[in-house]
Amino acid sequence: MTQSTTTLFRSYLIEEYHLTEEPYYKPVGDEIELFEAAYKQKIPLIFKGPTGCGKTRFVEYMSYRLGQTLTKVKQTGDDGAPRAGNIPLVTIACHEDLTSSDLVGRYLLEGDSTVWIDGPLTRAVKVGGICYLDEIVEARKDTTVLIHPLTDHRRILPVEKKGELLEAAEGFLLILSYNPGYQSALKDLKHSTRQRFVSIEFDYPPRDIEAEIVEHESGVDKDMAMQLAKLGEKVRNLREHGLGEGASTRLLIYAGKLISQGIAPRRACQVAVNWAVTDDPSVQKSIEELIGSIFE
Amino acid sequence: MTQSTTTLFRSYLIEEYHLTEEPYYKPVGDEIELFEAAYKQKIPLIFKGPTGCGKTRFVEYMSYRLGQTLTKVKQTGDDGAPRAGNIPLVTIACHEDLTSSDLVGRYLLEGDSTVWIDGPLTRAVKVGGICYLDEIVEARKDTTVLIHPLTDHRRILPVEKKGELLEAAEGFLLILSYNPGYQSALKDLKHSTRQRFVSIEFDYPPRDIEAEIVEHESGVDKDMAMQLAKLGEKVRNLREHGLGEGASTRLLIYAGKLISQGIAPRRACQVAVNWAVTDDPSVQKSIEELIGSIFE
Amino acid sequence: MTQSTTTLFRSYLIEEYHLTEEPYYKPVGDEIELFEAAYKQKIPLIFKGPTGCGKTRFVEYMSYRLGQTLTKVKQTGDDGAPRAGNIPLVTIACHEDLTSSDLVGRYLLEGDSTVWIDGPLTRAVKVGGICYLDEIVEARKDTTVLIHPLTDHRRILPVEKKGELLEAAEGFLLILSYNPGYQSALKDLKHSTRQRFVSIEFDYPPRDIEAEIVEHESGVDKDMAMQLAKLGEKVRNLREHGLGEGASTRLLIYAGKLISQGIAPRRACQVAVNWAVTDDPSVQKSIEELIGSIFE
Amino acid sequence: MTQSTTTLFRSYLIEEYHLTEEPYYKPVGDEIELFEAAYKQKIPLIFKGPTGCGKTRFVEYMSYRLGQTLTKVKQTGDDGAPRAGNIPLVTIACHEDLTSSDLVGRYLLEGDSTVWIDGPLTRAVKVGGICYLDEIVEARKDTTVLIHPLTDHRRILPVEKKGELLEAAEGFLLILSYNPGYQSALKDLKHSTRQRFVSIEFDYPPRDIEAEIVEHESGVDKDMAMQLAKLGEKVRNLREHGLGEGASTRLLIYAGKLISQGIAPRRACQVAVNWAVTDDPSVQKSIEELIGSIFE
Amino acid sequence: MTQSTTTLFRSYLIEEYHLTEEPYYKPVGDEIELFEAAYKQKIPLIFKGPTGCGKTRFVEYMSYRLGQTLTKVKQTGDDGAPRAGNIPLVTIACHEDLTSSDLVGRYLLEGDSTVWIDGPLTRAVKVGGICYLDEIVEARKDTTVLIHPLTDHRRILPVEKKGELLEAAEGFLLILSYNPGYQSALKDLKHSTRQRFVSIEFDYPPRDIEAEIVEHESGVDKDMAMQLAKLGEKVRNLREHGLGEGASTRLLIYAGKLISQGIAPRRACQVAVNWAVTDDPSVQKSIEELIGSIFE
Amino acid sequence: MTQSTTTLFRSYLIEEYHLTEEPYYKPVGDEIELFEAAYKQKIPLIFKGPTGCGKTRFVEYMSYRLGQTLTKVKQTGDDGAPRAGNIPLVTIACHEDLTSSDLVGRYLLEGDSTVWIDGPLTRAVKVGGICYLDEIVEARKDTTVLIHPLTDHRRILPVEKKGELLEAAEGFLLILSYNPGYQSALKDLKHSTRQRFVSIEFDYPPRDIEAEIVEHESGVDKDMAMQLAKLGEKVRNLREHGLGEGASTRLLIYAGKLISQGIAPRRACQVAVNWAVTDDPSVQKSIEELIGSIFE
Repeated sequence: MTQSTTTLFRSYLIEEYHLTEEPYYKPVGDEIELFEAAYKQKIPLIFKGPTGCGKTRFVEYMSYRLGQTLTKVKQTGDDGAPRAGNIPLVTIACHEDLTSSDLVGRYLLEGDSTVWIDGPLTRAVKVGGICYLDEIVEARKDTTVLIHPLTDHRRILPVEKKGELLEAAEGFLLILSYNPGYQSALKDLKHSTRQRFVSIEFDYPPRDIEAEIVEHESGVDKDMAMQLAKLGEKVRNLREHGLGEGASTRLLIYAGKLISQGIAPRRACQVAVNWAVTDDPSVQKSIEELIGSIFE
Repeated sequence: MTQSTTTLFRSYLIEEYHLTEEPYYKPVGDEIELFEAAYKQKIPLIFKGPTGCGKTRFVEYMSYRLGQTLTKVKQTGDDGAPRAGNIPLVTIACHEDLTSSDLVGRYLLEGDSTVWIDGPLTRAVKVGGICYLDEIVEARKDTTVLIHPLTDHRRILPVEKKGELLEAAEGFLLILSYNPGYQSALKDLKHSTRQRFVSIEFDYPPRDIEAEIVEHESGVDKDMAMQLAKLGEKVRNLREHGLGEGASTRLLIYAGKLISQGIAPRRACQVAVNWAVTDDPSVQKSIEELIGSIFE
Repeated sequence: MTQSTTTLFRSYLIEEYHLTEEPYYKPVGDEIELFEAAYKQKIPLIFKGPTGCGKTRFVEYMSYRLGQTLTKVKQTGDDGAPRAGNIPLVTIACHEDLTSSDLVGRYLLEGDSTVWIDGPLTRAVKVGGICYLDEIVEARKDTTVLIHPLTDHRRILPVEKKGELLEAAEGFLLILSYNPGYQSALKDLKHSTRQRFVSIEFDYPPRDIEAEIVEHESGVDKDMAMQLAKLGEKVRNLREHGLGEGASTRLLIYAGKLISQGIAPRRACQVAVNWAVTDDPSVQKSIEELIGSIFE
Repeated sequence: MTQSTTTLFRSYLIEEYHLTEEPYYKPVGDEIELFEAAYKQKIPLIFKGPTGCGKTRFVEYMSYRLGQTLTKVKQTGDDGAPRAGNIPLVTIACHEDLTSSDLVGRYLLEGDSTVWIDGPLTRAVKVGGICYLDEIVEARKDTTVLIHPLTDHRRILPVEKKGELLEAAEGFLLILSYNPGYQSALKDLKHSTRQRFVSIEFDYPPRDIEAEIVEHESGVDKDMAMQLAKLGEKVRNLREHGLGEGASTRLLIYAGKLISQGIAPRRACQVAVNWAVTDDPSVQKSIEELIGSIFE
Repeated sequence: MTQSTTTLFRSYLIEEYHLTEEPYYKPVGDEIELFEAAYKQKIPLIFKGPTGCGKTRFVEYMSYRLGQTLTKVKQTGDDGAPRAGNIPLVTIACHEDLTSSDLVGRYLLEGDSTVWIDGPLTRAVKVGGICYLDEIVEARKDTTVLIHPLTDHRRILPVEKKGELLEAAEGFLLILSYNPGYQSALKDLKHSTRQRFVSIEFDYPPRDIEAEIVEHESGVDKDMAMQLAKLGEKVRNLREHGLGEGASTRLLIYAGKLISQGIAPRRACQVAVNWAVTDDPSVQKSIEELIGSIFE
Repeated sequence: MTQSTTTLFRSYLIEEYHLTEEPYYKPVGDEIELFEAAYKQKIPLIFKGPTGCGKTRFVEYMSYRLGQTLTKVKQTGDDGAPRAGNIPLVTIACHEDLTSSDLVGRYLLEGDSTVWIDGPLTRAVKVGGICYLDEIVEARKDTTVLIHPLTDHRRILPVEKKGELLEAAEGFLLILSYNPGYQSALKDLKHSTRQRFVSIEFDYPPRDIEAEIVEHESGVDKDMAMQLAKLGEKVRNLREHGLGEGASTRLLIYAGKLISQGIAPRRACQVAVNWAVTDDPSVQKSIEELIGSIFE
């Protein structure tokens, strides 16, 4: 059990993680204004939209932006507490085995004594950060029920194992996301949960904006980026012809990155887009033709 | 595992939490009289009604009101016990993973010794508070069975892990809630449980009262509040046309709050009402038309 | 984790709980004679019958009565053991998460050492009390199997975690209850279990006796009690018209108690009987008419 | 957690429990010879037969009888080990939650050190007793698989948590029982298990022998016993007319015991036989008529 | 928790268990040559075949035989390590509750410190023994996946709880068995598992060889053994007429053993063969006739 | 619990395991170039393809090759950290019981103190190795969700039990594999997972290359290897005629190895190919004919 490794990696406390550089984000509509209005009114948010359309990036951008623009209420010096300019962002990927203890915290035996370890949600509640529960419909019922009191006017988190109630710090905001085209009837978000949130619907960016993003992120030139964005658009149109879900912007960027490493565009699009979105030979054939028509 | 945060949040013991300000509540019928009669007779209650129609707010209001009006039996000085004016309110959101230990308590190892931690139900039983089990039909069978002896004339809570029986303190009352339009056959409340309670049915408030509530809570003016209440009424009528559940009063308040932040009413109603209640494009279209007809 | 509460409640050891006052019970047939014959012959019993027809009350009554009438075999002075006049009654509400450890006992870590805590069944076996397993069909198979050796001529409880067998003390009797109109095929009591018991079937009391009970328990006058008993009878007749289960005597008593607090009889019967037994609007309408025909 | 009870009960170590008096058993065929032949050849046995037909009693009888008749191999003095005349009998009621640890043993923390506690099967293996696994088809697969090596020519029990193999002591024999008319396809005994055993089929005793048993066990006279045996026979014939399983001899004895306490025969048979075997009103009616025809 | 037993039994460390006498085994084809070729090439094996056809006995025989014939690489003196002549055989009966920890090992608290206990698979890997996983299709997926790296050219066992990889000692071989006529679609062996093994199919031995085995193992004479083998053959032919699985050689030996104890052949075959293979009355009748035709 | 074994085996820390000899690998297309481009761009990869077509071997080859060709960034001397020439390869076989703790790590009690043990994924993240999650579709949802942040631009692993985030070391790459012809709808890889990876599809090697591999690995001569490769090709064509999956290259090598031990080719192919790929008698017959036609 020797651990003979020099530190090749970096580690952070979850609640101290915040973005130090402005994330690249291209707004599509009034999503920034809506977010700011909700944040001021302490109204929790749901983001709905397909895989890889930019929801996570938007949350990162807003947590950075709000840190820059909000008044400096929290400037508390060198005691380790968050300062203006830093809105901690706590992201939690939901899944069916996530327990409420995973979110709220648990007792751990440490040597001879038992120590309480706050979960990521409790950490966000205490420091007044943004807590982003990604793919909430995957979560077990105890998780979704747990967040209800945080969306009441009292903004309370019950920590039942400690017999305590926590009132969320100023600045705390809860955000959920899910993909409505994706979820099954079994994994529907209950009305008693969803009616506690304002919901913003997202979609893939329009071709021009997507080309800008691909160019910026992958290093290909403007023309190639435009062609990749065009491919993305066309593949998404196949969704009515047997394709489960369209290609994400991320996959277009991957294709661009492989191209910038010298892989031929058609091969790059085959592995980064076509084979990535489907295993179905007939759908693969259709996408292959799309790729061929763009990158002759 | 350092926890370098100054205290930006507040915490309470669960059984000491009570309301210090009168919650805003507009009665619709004789619900206050019924509650008071049941409370005096120690008859446990079930509240039935749709999501967000005000059941939780009513419990909060009654726990505050009873604290003000009841005789001062419990005025016990500065020993930390509840005083007249304070009826502790313990709220528990039920879900399918809630165990009886979550309600009654458990042993925790603390350093070298084992400490018993009372669960929230036990805390309410001991201090004579109101215990509100929200969405009881979500609870597992062991939870619902556990409360049976508390509804007998003996008002007893068995704490089996300690080999004890607790007789509830004067003032203790058990209240359940569920949404009958919501629950499935699988999650029906058993007769052996439901026949231990008097049941009060709730519905959304009538338009005038709802407008008053929206105005009071969101800060919009009377006219805007009336229009939002009208929208709520119309959306609820869609329930027979494919909408799972009507818009709660809470969502109307959210719309009002966004409007008071400068978001245009139609956009505010889109994100706070329409997208919040449904993912179905055709239902969304109908609601969009309703919104358009009210906020031209 | 401070527990700043003065003792507003009372607690007992499970096996020391017994009734100090005679419970109010009106016999309907020869159930008292049957119980006494079985108790003398150490034959375990099953009580079958609908929700709230008085099975639990009968067990309480018999445990008090037997304590008064049996010879004083167990008069053992002030050592804490049960005395004549006291037959401890241990009631266990069964549910699908009740484990055999919940019944028999478990080891708990206490400080540096491990302590065995007897479960409620073991406590009843040791002191020679009556153990009443309510709604046995809800129990898991390991629970029902566990009681088999206690119904053999040897009357033995295996405590496998301790590697021990316990022979039940003189006076111990096992009683099960269930509701045959209620249980599903899935939750049938196995023949290898049920053929170890003599079974007594119970039903709601006839109108005259039920009126006496309602009058005695709720404080309304004889006429009102008769009308409530009449309502109960009529509601039970609806069982063939879509009502899952008839109204229990308990609900009639609740209605009486609300009436004695000044609530109008029709409203009292609406919340205590009608809404308590069903969520189905058409059945509610039928019951409303019944109520209207009795309390014009 | 004080345990203020004088010892009103008796307790034994599981492996030291043996019968000190000859159990009353009336052989029906050559079952005693078959058992003795198998015991000498160390061939494990399966007993098949309906509920309450005497399988358990037969095992008890044989463990007593073999203790009397076998040569005194194990007479080892006052060291606590079993002596001739004592073949320990370890009975385990199987159910779907019985784990292999429940059978083999587990580590328990005791104060500062961990102590291994042998399970009942391990105890039987070590002392060379008879281990009777009742209703084996209810057991989980890990339990049934666990016993396979004990039925090989090597007669070995793997105690995997200790990394050990135990060779069974001389005298150890494994016996299973199940009810073939009862089990579902889901709970079938696998061929890889059942083909490790010689199987003996049991049925209810013929009328004369059953009457003798009822008379001996319940205290009624010969005539009454004969009538009860006749009732048992007739009720069993109803099995083809909707009755799940016939009345066991045990139930006839219960009826006899109630009769000997002064309960009228028809009432005694109603509660001890009719209501005990079925909840179905039409089957109850048929049995009522049978009872009426015998006890006019 | 006193354990007052003198040692009537013997115990071994799992990895030190090996056969000291040559097991009786009659080869049917070239199975010995195939096994030796695979063992030299370190190719893992699957044995397919019906219940009780001799797969386990063959593994025991080969482990003994290889210990005798292989060069004496492992002769390491009196340090407790295996010597030539001893190839440890570790047999594991698979079932659906067998966890990977059961195979690989786990940490156990022992007094104040935690001790790692190797599981049986780890023990076989370390000493270079034969590990026989019986009825592998019963195992959970984590178990079957666990053995994959042991069948790679690297022959590695990941012990993830210790963060280690173990390279198997020279001599280690993995053997699985299952019954293809038995398994359901649900319990199919995955191709990613089965294509890691060479598979040998087994069947019941031909009549002459089986008679030799029965004679040798049960003590009956040659004629009787021949008749029993003939019965086995005929019963197996019933498999197409409703019999789940044919009678194993083991059952024929049991019949022989009962006969050698003086039980009449027809009765012996009834309990050891007929009732052992089926509960179905019509199949029992057919087998009864077979028995009658052989043992008139 | 004595462990009397001399060390006959070797053990490694998981994160220090790397290949010291170049694995034998025959490229089929541009898979090496694609892998290198993705590795430079830190794009995670999915390998799709049938059982035993060489995916695992390819990962081993690339981890060795990249260690040889990459610039010597990580040459850090004798402190135990990885050096150029060594890219650690951490392989994890996924299955439905693999928890996120199995991947990330857990606290273990060690003597009096609790020690955190990194899981294999955390080890790969920290040392900058290649982490290969084999058969990812078998994994539980919590496992697949866990890897999402490692595929974001931030390359972060949340270690929630420690309240930490780890940024992956330079050189870390995540690779998944699955078999698209194999997986059920239930075990589909979610789009939110698969669209985070570039996907490369693999198939069995063409006949000439496969023959070279079989010759090299099994020791048979070129002709025999060619015949075995021909058999492989023909068996795979049977996939449309009831065969679940074609024979892997590995099975052809097994056949070759048995042949090189003197087993006749037809018998070797029967046990190593035919019986290994199917239990279905009619498919076995077809394959037997194929074998017969090649090895007359």
